Amino acid sequence: MSTVRDRPNRLFTGSDPAQAPNTSEYGSANVEPGHTRRRAELKVYQHERRLRTDGGLAVRDITDEVASAVSESGVRDGIACVYSPHTTCCVRVNEFESGLLQDFTNLLRKLVPTEDYYAHDDWDRRTENICPEDMDMGNGHSHCMAMLLGTAGESIPIRGGELQLGSWQRVLFLELDRERDRRWIVQVVGE
Amino acid sequence: MSTVRDRPNRLFTGSDPAQAPNTSEYGSANVEPGHTRRRAELKVYQHERRLRTDGGLAVRDITDEVASAVSESGVRDGIACVYSPHTTCCVRVNEFESGLLQDFTNLLRKLVPTEDYYAHDDWDRRTENICPEDMDMGNGHSHCMAMLLGTAGESIPIRGGELQLGSWQRVLFLELDRERDRRWIVQVVGE
Amino acid sequence: MSTVRDRPNRLFTGSDPAQAPNTSEYGSANVEPGHTRRRAELKVYQHERRLRTDGGLAVRDITDEVASAVSESGVRDGIACVYSPHTTCCVRVNEFESGLLQDFTNLLRKLVPTEDYYAHDDWDRRTENICPEDMDMGNGHSHCMAMLLGTAGESIPIRGGELQLGSWQRVLFLELDRERDRRWIVQVVGE
Repeated sequence: MSTVRDRPNRLFTGSDPAQAPNTSEYGSANVEPGHTRRRAELKVYQHERRLRTDGGLAVRDITDEVASAVSESGVRDGIACVYSPHTTCCVRVNEFESGLLQDFTNLLRKLVPTEDYYAHDDWDRRTENICPEDMDMGNGHSHCMAMLLGTAGESIPIRGGELQLGSWQRVLFLELDRERDRRWIVQVVGE
Repeated sequence: MSTVRDRPNRLFTGSDPAQAPNTSEYGSANVEPGHTRRRAELKVYQHERRLRTDGGLAVRDITDEVASAVSESGVRDGIACVYSPHTTCCVRVNEFESGLLQDFTNLLRKLVPTEDYYAHDDWDRRTENICPEDMDMGNGHSHCMAMLLGTAGESIPIRGGELQLGSWQRVLFLELDRERDRRWIVQVVGE
Repeated sequence: MSTVRDRPNRLFTGSDPAQAPNTSEYGSANVEPGHTRRRAELKVYQHERRLRTDGGLAVRDITDEVASAVSESGVRDGIACVYSPHTTCCVRVNEFESGLLQDFTNLLRKLVPTEDYYAHDDWDRRTENICPEDMDMGNGHSHCMAMLLGTAGESIPIRGGELQLGSWQRVLFLELDRERDRRWIVQVVGE
């Protein structure tokens, strides 16, 4: 390891210091107690749900369904891994507000233009993983969006039987491809 | 909480409604049963693998090695956390198709140009975390790519002893830096 | 499944082959042994910490606090899920080096310009999730940054009671919005 460990609680701020006063120590002693339970019994629960998406960057709020699955699992403390088994979808946690989702859609389309050339959609060249449906409507941009956005799923802590979502956090299923049959999985592990 | 919870299963679609008919309720009653096992025994298994990468945005398909590790773990139901302990690599789940990987490489290079100025590579200025090898070949762009892409790893549900990957999903190790000695870890937790 | 499974350990390289010799088989036999423990006792531990952030893309190094929580949990082998319950923050693992963080800040501001129009901040139009504080200072760009960066948290393997972070990896709390009261959670699950 580097000498980095000797300097705890370091801070970088990209803002103008005149505008953002350094009050970063707020709450540093404000630690809520954790809790450990020994000899607890393990529970693992999987729930799968199917849906038909709209195409063209559609976002579905699946929070209530995920919360129900956690409730059914009987897990009080653990982790919920909400997962998309698709390569042109993902599960993300953020706010469900239509203006924001329009903003995000616009951003994604600007960064990953649908009209650009994608070798993935070049059927004069492609020889691998042939999927006849994709020939009608290319989805190279959808894959690129999915990889840019990150992982296929999100892992969310559970405490007292509840997802530890913040006030504005919702669990979202993002369709980055055309209208399709999809599914998502939630794997709950804990006690 | 906001009033958001009162409106379950909300949908946002960024597409032209004329082109994407709202068939979003498809499958809403199509829930597959979950399963809970009580008094199960916990298993935790870690597997580490070393590799020498190619440089310049190389992608390795490590799916079969991850699946073997899950098999060796004896875990039937749980989570596999596949993790890169490097700051200029990441593990991602998507399709392994060479056209797509070329598309994604082009996109990343467009969004995070190697030839831009990076303070991380400015040895007239840098004083922290000195790594002699980086002096020969800057990697500020590689770090920026890694942070933009998201987390260091991916968490994948396991059921019946198998990774719950979709038809086209593969586990990929992405090298965003020069050719280097690397490793990845898979942590399997479950029953 | 496709025929993909028949070709293990596949490699894509986006680099000029003349510059990046294919030495990708290095270490392929260099597998470190995993370990399984049966009838282990499950431990689940949650730790929450509050902080006051600086605004304007501030990054806090929270590695030591996360490591302390893992130590307190008594978990020797498992997973730490470090989580931000906010929609305009995230937890990410990368290097803490001020030049790099400046580079990354510049990149994010270029890709997601603060001065663009965001429907999320258009109070002539918005009707959902009204948050009075946001009226003073729009944060549509902060949400878009958070969604682009990926998940709310990171999952990190634990072995021998220690986070399996690489040499340069640090756990970072990223504030993408204005100066605010925030918190992060670490959920530790294992044995």
